[in-house]
Amino acid sequence: MTYTPRTRLFVEAPLAAGAAVEAAEGQAHYLMHVMRAKAGDAVALFNGRDGEWSAKVAYPAKRKVHLEAGERLREQYAEPDVWLVFAPVKRIEFLVEKATELGARALHPVFTRRTTIGRVNRARLLANATEAAEQSDRLSVPEIMDARQLLDALGAWPEDRTLYFLDETGGGAPIAEVLTRARNDANVKKPIAFLTGPEGGFDQTELDALRRLPFAVPVGLGPRILRAETAALAALACWQALCGDWN
Amino acid sequence: MTYTPRTRLFVEAPLAAGAAVEAAEGQAHYLMHVMRAKAGDAVALFNGRDGEWSAKVAYPAKRKVHLEAGERLREQYAEPDVWLVFAPVKRIEFLVEKATELGARALHPVFTRRTTIGRVNRARLLANATEAAEQSDRLSVPEIMDARQLLDALGAWPEDRTLYFLDETGGGAPIAEVLTRARNDANVKKPIAFLTGPEGGFDQTELDALRRLPFAVPVGLGPRILRAETAALAALACWQALCGDWN
Repeated sequence: MTYTPRTRLFVEAPLAAGAAVEAAEGQAHYLMHVMRAKAGDAVALFNGRDGEWSAKVAYPAKRKVHLEAGERLREQYAEPDVWLVFAPVKRIEFLVEKATELGARALHPVFTRRTTIGRVNRARLLANATEAAEQSDRLSVPEIMDARQLLDALGAWPEDRTLYFLDETGGGAPIAEVLTRARNDANVKKPIAFLTGPEGGFDQTELDALRRLPFAVPVGLGPRILRAETAALAALACWQALCGDWN
Repeated sequence: MTYTPRTRLFVEAPLAAGAAVEAAEGQAHYLMHVMRAKAGDAVALFNGRDGEWSAKVAYPAKRKVHLEAGERLREQYAEPDVWLVFAPVKRIEFLVEKATELGARALHPVFTRRTTIGRVNRARLLANATEAAEQSDRLSVPEIMDARQLLDALGAWPEDRTLYFLDETGGGAPIAEVLTRARNDANVKKPIAFLTGPEGGFDQTELDALRRLPFAVPVGLGPRILRAETAALAALACWQALCGDWN
């Protein structure tokens, strides 16, 4: 196993042997003042396209930090193709962090009837996701899709992607049964998404709309009432275990 | 389905038709000042022994709140027999809340070599667990066991309980494989526990000790690095889905 330096940073720039990447402001602060990195200290870089690279810290000028890429440590790969579509909840930053750790490829906030949060700070969520990607050894940051109304999102839904919605009214089959079937049946469409509601759950019109959609499948998570963020994380974990890359 | 009032309170007292239970101080405050409950308003009570009961709020004297039990709404049942043994982490309250929602029967803090948290506030964790039990429709609060050293806990371990330890070094079989085998093999001991390490992971001596124990089984949770609390919740969710009461 190749040695991977513990500090991992996401960068936008292309990565190749010898490339010198300028550290973003926050990264420069982190390297200088938190890590107290010396010139020549090793970090790892990834940009979601070119794999993971070893790099050395350099200080070409006052307050400037360059990261000089050395060799490729890992080839790029894509996370398994699972999205999390979620009504924003109070603990949205926590939800984004955990969904990133659990390998979601994209995160899609949707406003539902009972959603009490009026707007989503996309930049902030992207920062949460980036930090979680750096710490969890991912080679990509999940895409944070634009927030939109649930019904608009469903209207524009890509029909080849199965949408498992977490049905807290008990209308769904147990998640292990649904996912085992998905894994074993070649006819089940494989790119998937989970949809979770807000703290107060979906309302009846939303459930009715979901149940009429050919690509939507209700899923149950047992007899206890789970908070919205717990349900999202539990579903992602079960999916990775049964159908994703935990196997 | 019997109608369940939405406010659920855990009480210590026995519950039976006609029993008048005095609300604890925090509950009285919650009912009077947060819920602004009127005399006669309905709540639900549980004590971990007698099932769930409907009850009515009564104010027999100034600042006193009684809860008068009416009829039994649900028979008592026990949560599936899964424990969470965990090194205390910064987000310990979050961990306790989520493990309660996910149906853990008991929570057992253990200090490991790399645990940076020196003591555990058991009363506080019990309060977190109680609130989560009330909100998640459980009929019991998970037991919070006394914190002890990992090696002491292993020395006193009940040998009929399989201990799945989350091995972040990659030494464990995938969790779905391990749990599917457990479900299908009548010889696998059924009461189980998951063990999760601290932020820095188990140290080598701990891993060596765990690997020598006949009741301990290493389990893997995929290629990404999960935070300690994420690993605990993911494992509990997978277990409930495959072996617990989500089926």
